Amino acid sequence: MRTLLLAASAVLALSLPLAAQEAAKPAAPAPSEIVAAAPKADWVAIPAEDLLVMTLAPDADGKPRQVVIQLMPAPFSQGWVHNIRLFARAKWYDGISVNRVQDNYVTQWGDPNYDNPEATGKPKPLPEGLKVMGEDEYTASLAEWQNRNAERDRARQDKEAADLVLRPAETEPYPAWQSIDAYANNVNFYDGWPVATVWRNSFPQAWWPTHCYGMVGVGRNYSPDTGSGAELYTVIGHAPRHLDRNIALVGRVIEGMQHLSSLPRGSGDLGFYTAEESAKRTPIMSVRVANDLPMNEQPAFEYLSTESETFATYAEAIANRRDPFFITPAGGADICNIRVPVRRVAR
Amino acid sequence: MRTLLLAASAVLALSLPLAAQEAAKPAAPAPSEIVAAAPKADWVAIPAEDLLVMTLAPDADGKPRQVVIQLMPAPFSQGWVHNIRLFARAKWYDGISVNRVQDNYVTQWGDPNYDNPEATGKPKPLPEGLKVMGEDEYTASLAEWQNRNAERDRARQDKEAADLVLRPAETEPYPAWQSIDAYANNVNFYDGWPVATVWRNSFPQAWWPTHCYGMVGVGRNYSPDTGSGAELYTVIGHAPRHLDRNIALVGRVIEGMQHLSSLPRGSGDLGFYTAEESAKRTPIMSVRVANDLPMNEQPAFEYLSTESETFATYAEAIANRRDPFFITPAGGADICNIRVPVRRVAR
Repeated sequence: MRTLLLAASAVLALSLPLAAQEAAKPAAPAPSEIVAAAPKADWVAIPAEDLLVMTLAPDADGKPRQVVIQLMPAPFSQGWVHNIRLFARAKWYDGISVNRVQDNYVTQWGDPNYDNPEATGKPKPLPEGLKVMGEDEYTASLAEWQNRNAERDRARQDKEAADLVLRPAETEPYPAWQSIDAYANNVNFYDGWPVATVWRNSFPQAWWPTHCYGMVGVGRNYSPDTGSGAELYTVIGHAPRHLDRNIALVGRVIEGMQHLSSLPRGSGDLGFYTAEESAKRTPIMSVRVANDLPMNEQPAFEYLSTESETFATYAEAIANRRDPFFITPAGGADICNIRVPVRRVAR
Repeated sequence: MRTLLLAASAVLALSLPLAAQEAAKPAAPAPSEIVAAAPKADWVAIPAEDLLVMTLAPDADGKPRQVVIQLMPAPFSQGWVHNIRLFARAKWYDGISVNRVQDNYVTQWGDPNYDNPEATGKPKPLPEGLKVMGEDEYTASLAEWQNRNAERDRARQDKEAADLVLRPAETEPYPAWQSIDAYANNVNFYDGWPVATVWRNSFPQAWWPTHCYGMVGVGRNYSPDTGSGAELYTVIGHAPRHLDRNIALVGRVIEGMQHLSSLPRGSGDLGFYTAEESAKRTPIMSVRVANDLPMNEQPAFEYLSTESETFATYAEAIANRRDPFFITPAGGADICNIRVPVRRVAR
């Protein structure tokens, strides 16, 4: 990673003629450099109750494979999140497998004998206490949410309106445009998550999380089924945003994504492994809520507050890349290309 | 794949009461079904001169791995496309390797000893006759292009303006919106390729191809270098559209994408394989222009004309999924989620 030399070049500038000062001007920081320079206060600890540690069977070289998933906070998908913790605590996920890897779409794991065109045995019985959710829970009601915390919400909305405009570099003659979106009236970030909004009659009506790379969702059958959480998937290609509001999103992979994205693709319909390919199904040894692990085994993570100044600077720099490799800043960015920074920290 | 039963249900409807007719109404076709029903005339043959056949070393199970790349037609990137055919015909690519696999970004191949932080030997000399391109060639001048074929262009522009509006399903109360884009003033398709446009003073100024999943581009060093074509990459994650107008796009993978997207990720900077991981570099045995192969070894492909009625119907169906799995059509679609259908055909 390029090192920021702001202090050094400021001193240098005093003793150089103008043209050389221009040449010595420090390079615009890359988005990753802006994140690296964020103050400690801009980072938010992720509760251990929101972390799932999924251990896959070791790879062909015998190397361990661990995936960490951050579960989604309220007001989104809390019924499914409840179920997922319940499945994990019942050790129900232990011994299931990755059954589907569809290129540029999803990697999906669950009981290989449940609703799988290539099933060879009987499905595993589900644990007791699972909630059943309605389709209206794919989105969160903004009205209800505003009632819960009207003051905080008003302050946030003012701030979001200001943050949203990702203007192109001032040196560019292109017209300014917003972080506009083909799938919603508005896209933004809320408590560390990418969200989209739809308006009716000039008022926001519903918010929902967006299907970006690495997001984790709940497999389901045809409507009115909404899925229990027994079957999960993660996005391994271009954001399939048409799934927004049609499937529950429950979290995102924050570590070990490569263990799910680089698996061999299935050659059956929808990328399921065929019966002949059943050896390619990656076994899932265990899935644990981090909070249930012994303290010294609990991983700890922080995300960069999406309400921080640093995040706004980072998003703007993604929309207008001025770091040395770039010659034409885009002047905008897709919500799924503004990845919320997450880092592992010592506990 | 679900079978379309339009004819059968039309007969059935004559003998059923109204409620049952409703129930028997054929399901709205999925985008893939619209493509499958396209008339032969809507498919366009890809010239063998535009097809590159890249043979990787067999996989760990000894299975062959072949990737087919379609090179981009005029008016885009023709200097680099010239170079790539020259590299292939000089057999320069034979024996190079995949050196970089960065999750949610790119898989990149080239001479492992050229400009690679993990190089261990001397770079391979380049062939004679390579063109050197300027940065202005990352985009195509619309003015020049219009001069070349003003009449065809006017007809196309009228049609494109009509096609562009991807209206939401009529049953949805959401406002209509276009296939809008965070990276350009307009996005569309031209001769089978996704393209973006920027306007100044209400006139389109330049067009360029977009960095969607599977697109192939030319690695380069810092500006003013624009790359020769010796180093190529393909997109294996969410479209890195900020690279548009900053790197030359030269084609797309149309078969065998999984051989590049499912490779193990490199653990060095930018996803390069480290010296310790050099065994993970996938060898590239050969790259041939299909036209140079014996006739019986030449693969043949067609793409669905992006100027056809079928393509407009397909794009609209992607923006407004009404097939049985979906409960809330999006009302729009990202340019990179409207994948141009390509199929292999018998020669």
